[in-house]
Amino acid sequence: MSIRIGIYGYGNLGKGIENAIRQNPDMTLAAVFTRRDPSKVKIATPNVPVVLASDVEQYVGKIDVMILCGGSATDLPEQTPALAKLFPVVDSFDTHANIPAHLAKVDEAAKQGGHAAMISVGWDPGMFSLNRFYASAVLPEGEDYTFWGKGVSQGHSDAIRRIDGVADAKQYTIPVDSALEAVRSGAAPTLTTRQKHTRECFVVAEEGADLDRIENEIKTMPNYFADYDTTVHFITAEELKRDHSGIPHGGFVIRTGKTGANKEHNHVIEYSLKLDSNPEFTSSVIVAFARAVNRLQSEGNFGCKTVFDIPPIYLSAKPASEIVKNLL
Amino acid sequence: MSIRIGIYGYGNLGKGIENAIRQNPDMTLAAVFTRRDPSKVKIATPNVPVVLASDVEQYVGKIDVMILCGGSATDLPEQTPALAKLFPVVDSFDTHANIPAHLAKVDEAAKQGGHAAMISVGWDPGMFSLNRFYASAVLPEGEDYTFWGKGVSQGHSDAIRRIDGVADAKQYTIPVDSALEAVRSGAAPTLTTRQKHTRECFVVAEEGADLDRIENEIKTMPNYFADYDTTVHFITAEELKRDHSGIPHGGFVIRTGKTGANKEHNHVIEYSLKLDSNPEFTSSVIVAFARAVNRLQSEGNFGCKTVFDIPPIYLSAKPASEIVKNLL
Repeated sequence: MSIRIGIYGYGNLGKGIENAIRQNPDMTLAAVFTRRDPSKVKIATPNVPVVLASDVEQYVGKIDVMILCGGSATDLPEQTPALAKLFPVVDSFDTHANIPAHLAKVDEAAKQGGHAAMISVGWDPGMFSLNRFYASAVLPEGEDYTFWGKGVSQGHSDAIRRIDGVADAKQYTIPVDSALEAVRSGAAPTLTTRQKHTRECFVVAEEGADLDRIENEIKTMPNYFADYDTTVHFITAEELKRDHSGIPHGGFVIRTGKTGANKEHNHVIEYSLKLDSNPEFTSSVIVAFARAVNRLQSEGNFGCKTVFDIPPIYLSAKPASEIVKNLL
Repeated sequence: MSIRIGIYGYGNLGKGIENAIRQNPDMTLAAVFTRRDPSKVKIATPNVPVVLASDVEQYVGKIDVMILCGGSATDLPEQTPALAKLFPVVDSFDTHANIPAHLAKVDEAAKQGGHAAMISVGWDPGMFSLNRFYASAVLPEGEDYTFWGKGVSQGHSDAIRRIDGVADAKQYTIPVDSALEAVRSGAAPTLTTRQKHTRECFVVAEEGADLDRIENEIKTMPNYFADYDTTVHFITAEELKRDHSGIPHGGFVIRTGKTGANKEHNHVIEYSLKLDSNPEFTSSVIVAFARAVNRLQSEGNFGCKTVFDIPPIYLSAKPASEIVKNLL
């Protein structure tokens, strides 16, 4: 029987989920939920209802796993616990510092509702977390490094757009090659924020805006840019659209560690992603873990889990014997 | 309470396990079992008994997890099922084609004995298998590639040593850079055996041996070398000892796949290892999974598992809350 998926929120991530479902023949899109006027939301899958978010309770029993596609700042902290009372759920909550609190809230709600739940699924948190974890379990004496990029940071792009005189902007986070090489060498360097990543900004200014002031406001912005070497390019709206309309991302998780009677042997474990579309890859990860949530639900294993709790085999629709034969 | 580990077989892998245990404070080496005369086997850990393998039954109740360190050709197919009747066990069985049969035999024995068991733990099979699996679950439409090296292949080194006139030899398996680049480009190339890896041999010939004949016998050896571009260097015993006494290895698991409404987005997932010591890294992986076996045993979850079955969190001695906080 097909796993009936609900999509709660139809932005870039929701659209990615819709595409990912089509690549997983054991799943069906059951409904899309939106806070907008449903008659104005056109989805790509024929014959699937678009439903007002406030009517979601009517879908209890018709959705096997609800995938939450809202933002981590204000949507998910409210939505995931609320929906975990009604459905098995997965989200991609990515505010690292608030994960323990979110986990506790969703866990309580999911247990109350008798549902399986997962939070913080995607690539970071998600696949990067798994790789940090496996590498640290295997090499207990070592150092972890995570680099992001080259890729678009929505948060940093938004921060630039809020500057007076900026019409539009796109910001790329770029790992510093020499830092990557130093890490891979096994030297276990201590790296400052500035040494790990640079930031490159493509900015469309409003007519007559003071470019020097904008550039200075970007480069000195606390938290976002002040601690980085930042480059600012002013370009036209046409150039921005032509050259920077994609949402690529990626990065590197590297652990170096030592073994041996005298710690004489170095080892380097490296995991990297190079993604043409950040939201589509995130969606692909979420959909695989939605399968695990469905399985946990069928086992009566309620409460909120993270990627660390899930036996890998739960991600696949294929029989275990085939996986052992072909992939072990 | 410390997890009491038994090492069954004290070669390179057994010594690696002994070192790895020292890096995991929740574990203790309880005993080393050997088929040799125990009085002649000197181990590195003080006050730990070296016991004749045939006396292993006397250690029932004194070992929490037995780690089998024999070879896949003849040792493990007999030893792992036999010992799974007596102890929770882990092995690193790596004859890919025979894994399903070995799994079935160990599963039956472990269930009969009331023990948890794992087979085929290490880096390939092991961490590489996990990465092939996760990547294929996340990107269902794509292609998998595994490259090995640069590293020493014991099997190929042994094959050269069996040639008449060869005193000693070391063989390196080397991935072809242009093939790696073609895979990373997302072009999903079809690669022949010859296109993926080259083989480099360092050979010490006996005095007066016919070097041309030896080189020709190596390069034309079926299965081992005939399908590869092979380079042979004749060197002295001193040079072999000085420059080629390590056992480095490593490799790459790469999956490329597509997503999007029209499959317009490419993604590349890459996992790589660069290891100074193949047996010590394999040991480090095994020891982490031994912790999982101990946990399965305490849950009464008997029978034989593979890396695909184990919730990642079972590999760690750290509390889940700490892992979520620091690594998610």
